[in-house]
Amino acid sequence: MTSTPLTFEQKLANYADLLVRVGVNLQPGGKLYLNAPIEAASLARLVAQKAWEAGAVDVDVHYADQQLSRLMYDHAPQAALDYAPAWATEQAMHQLDDGYVFLSIAGSDPDLLAGADQERIARRSKVTAQQGRAVSERMGAFEVNWSVGAMPVPSWAAKVFPELPLDEAISQLWEAIFTVSRADRPDPVEAWRAHTEQLARVRDHLNGRRYQALHFRNAHSDIVFGLADGHLWAGGAWPAQNGVAGVPNLPTDEVFTAPHRDRIDGYVRASKPLSVRGTLIEDIYMRFEAGRVVEATASRGQEVLTALLDTDEGARHLGELALVEYDSPVASTGVLFYNTLFDENAASHIALGRAYSFNVEGGTQPATGAQALTQAGANDSLIHVDWMIGTPDTDVDGVYPDGRRESVMRAGKWKF
Amino acid sequence: MTSTPLTFEQKLANYADLLVRVGVNLQPGGKLYLNAPIEAASLARLVAQKAWEAGAVDVDVHYADQQLSRLMYDHAPQAALDYAPAWATEQAMHQLDDGYVFLSIAGSDPDLLAGADQERIARRSKVTAQQGRAVSERMGAFEVNWSVGAMPVPSWAAKVFPELPLDEAISQLWEAIFTVSRADRPDPVEAWRAHTEQLARVRDHLNGRRYQALHFRNAHSDIVFGLADGHLWAGGAWPAQNGVAGVPNLPTDEVFTAPHRDRIDGYVRASKPLSVRGTLIEDIYMRFEAGRVVEATASRGQEVLTALLDTDEGARHLGELALVEYDSPVASTGVLFYNTLFDENAASHIALGRAYSFNVEGGTQPATGAQALTQAGANDSLIHVDWMIGTPDTDVDGVYPDGRRESVMRAGKWKF
Ligand SMILES: [Zn+2]
Ligand SMILES: [Zn+2]
Ligand SMILES: [Zn+2]
Ligand SMILES: [Zn+2]
Repeated sequence: MTSTPLTFEQKLANYADLLVRVGVNLQPGGKLYLNAPIEAASLARLVAQKAWEAGAVDVDVHYADQQLSRLMYDHAPQAALDYAPAWATEQAMHQLDDGYVFLSIAGSDPDLLAGADQERIARRSKVTAQQGRAVSERMGAFEVNWSVGAMPVPSWAAKVFPELPLDEAISQLWEAIFTVSRADRPDPVEAWRAHTEQLARVRDHLNGRRYQALHFRNAHSDIVFGLADGHLWAGGAWPAQNGVAGVPNLPTDEVFTAPHRDRIDGYVRASKPLSVRGTLIEDIYMRFEAGRVVEATASRGQEVLTALLDTDEGARHLGELALVEYDSPVASTGVLFYNTLFDENAASHIALGRAYSFNVEGGTQPATGAQALTQAGANDSLIHVDWMIGTPDTDVDGVYPDGRRESVMRAGKWKF
Repeated sequence: MTSTPLTFEQKLANYADLLVRVGVNLQPGGKLYLNAPIEAASLARLVAQKAWEAGAVDVDVHYADQQLSRLMYDHAPQAALDYAPAWATEQAMHQLDDGYVFLSIAGSDPDLLAGADQERIARRSKVTAQQGRAVSERMGAFEVNWSVGAMPVPSWAAKVFPELPLDEAISQLWEAIFTVSRADRPDPVEAWRAHTEQLARVRDHLNGRRYQALHFRNAHSDIVFGLADGHLWAGGAWPAQNGVAGVPNLPTDEVFTAPHRDRIDGYVRASKPLSVRGTLIEDIYMRFEAGRVVEATASRGQEVLTALLDTDEGARHLGELALVEYDSPVASTGVLFYNTLFDENAASHIALGRAYSFNVEGGTQPATGAQALTQAGANDSLIHVDWMIGTPDTDVDGVYPDGRRESVMRAGKWKF
């Protein structure tokens, strides 16, 4: 028995279906907020159709235009950078109250803001992060299902495959996305069931261990990540507070938890470039003392990196530690995506800034969650920026409170 | 001395400049809400840049995707048609409070919803009109400046120039838009000053006359339009309630006022097809008795026309009577635009539904305006739909309360 490869249209339909049924797991009678780049209109329309067919009573599509951000930084008066009316987040708050699920389509030029005024970007980023803080917190607590997919917009595809003609670059990037998202499988929903079951097994194993710290080493890094007290590992599919299970990122190959804000010591080097605030940062190196970044360099984008760390005190501490096998599906494509949604699933990574409240016991409790997070040592900040540190030569040990050690990873693979 | 014709880029820049400086007349420190089809991103970006350069502190761009409407009508469950949360209009209310100016870019397939379920469209249109009622009323009272421009999106250009290859159809439609918007002039802002001064002369003349009715006749129409008591003629540029003068439509060649809800008798035939709710209606014929439509037929789109009239009682009465010379700039292009923004400036026209509150003395007063409008005989409805009735053989008489008559138009031209 042979099986015919799917056509592009079949894979695209599968992908839209996965975003709706697996990513945000839209229920009949549900409501969908969809954010997409204008270049992703074709995908947005497919998603909308799938959502209507799933019985949605609202599909609220907001299109984003990356060029408008660049224009703002290049042409707006200074007062515009500080303008952030409180009412601008009211709609998102209403939609959270009303149980909307939130789907975002990623896709932008990784170098969109290269050469723009970094001081203006940092200032504006801080203003909008403050403005969006309440919404971010509710999203971060997984109050409702949300997920992120992607669309190969031309400026992005050209960056990933600079040697190819644009049309081919776009279709190569689509194929890579289909592969890592399992949209090329005959039954992608079943493939995701099996995959998230496997991630759940890893997650449950680590949750059973109650390590106090992880010791992470490779040729360029030697660092001990203390974990938050009562930390919880997450990964794959899990229920939002309404009880509906979804998958917040498509693809996802990570399991992750909250490190302890003040218990990280050592040095670590990035294994991939990072596109953040529209600029590429390359060869990041950081040294930590008592959880705090005390040294941070990059061969490119140093100015952006420094501005990021200067956002607030929490930006110099970590909010996430994620483990990914070196030969994960994303890594196996051999593609450097210049997009965190993908690249973070090709390598173990850490995030500067805020921890997810569901990564700590009691962290999502309405009245007591904030205090639980602080007491557990989970970090807080306006930012949450992942960067990749995993390599094929990475060893990770789990360290118990009494100093006993166990192998967690050897040469970038699980060792349990 | 010869003058060089402007390049396409110069005309496009002029057009964006006109929308910002003449249309909404954005002031330094002002805030702009811009609504545009996704296909008009290039124009939206130009407008955004002009707005920043004019000193805007916010440029809030919302992209619309006509295909999403079609998908909704074709695939959404019935409950979606009735879904209209109150919070969805809160942002517009906040922006009105904060003095935003509102610019819309028109451009859609005139036949977008042909063949879709008319009952679903009528139902949804009514729900959204009710939902947007408070916003519409504040816009209708010209509380802040708003204006409408256009972009030749492919589906529209193809309809206007079906015999041309798509690229040529788009550039022909651009040229037509540039011409009627005076964007092809060396000093378009000055050209608009002169043009609106000319419209002001006509408007002031008619306002001085205090006619009780206008008698409108051509080969296919014979109808007396009673005018609202205390009616005011508008046209060209005039100040919003904040005192800043703008031009609500680019182009505009009309002067218009509020007819009396119950004082219209006779019959009238459309001189152009009308695209409304995504469907073309052709050869409209209507007969009025005591202001009410008692007979309404069309050779195409009858179902849409009937549904429109059945929206509410006010949909069977008129809210606007506009006079336009038969050889206006838009008419002189010889182009049938299938878009009211343009076609209404090629011919005298009337609108089913709501009257503008600024077309009646005292109509925009916060506390007493609604009562003033009712007492003056101005019509109210959820809809306002213009359709074209002017022809080169149209004669219009002004009728005084004592029955005395004066020529207002002869053979489609002003006669004063
Ligand atoms: Zn992660
Ligand atoms: Zn993260
Ligand atoms: Zn009009
Ligand atoms: Zn009108």
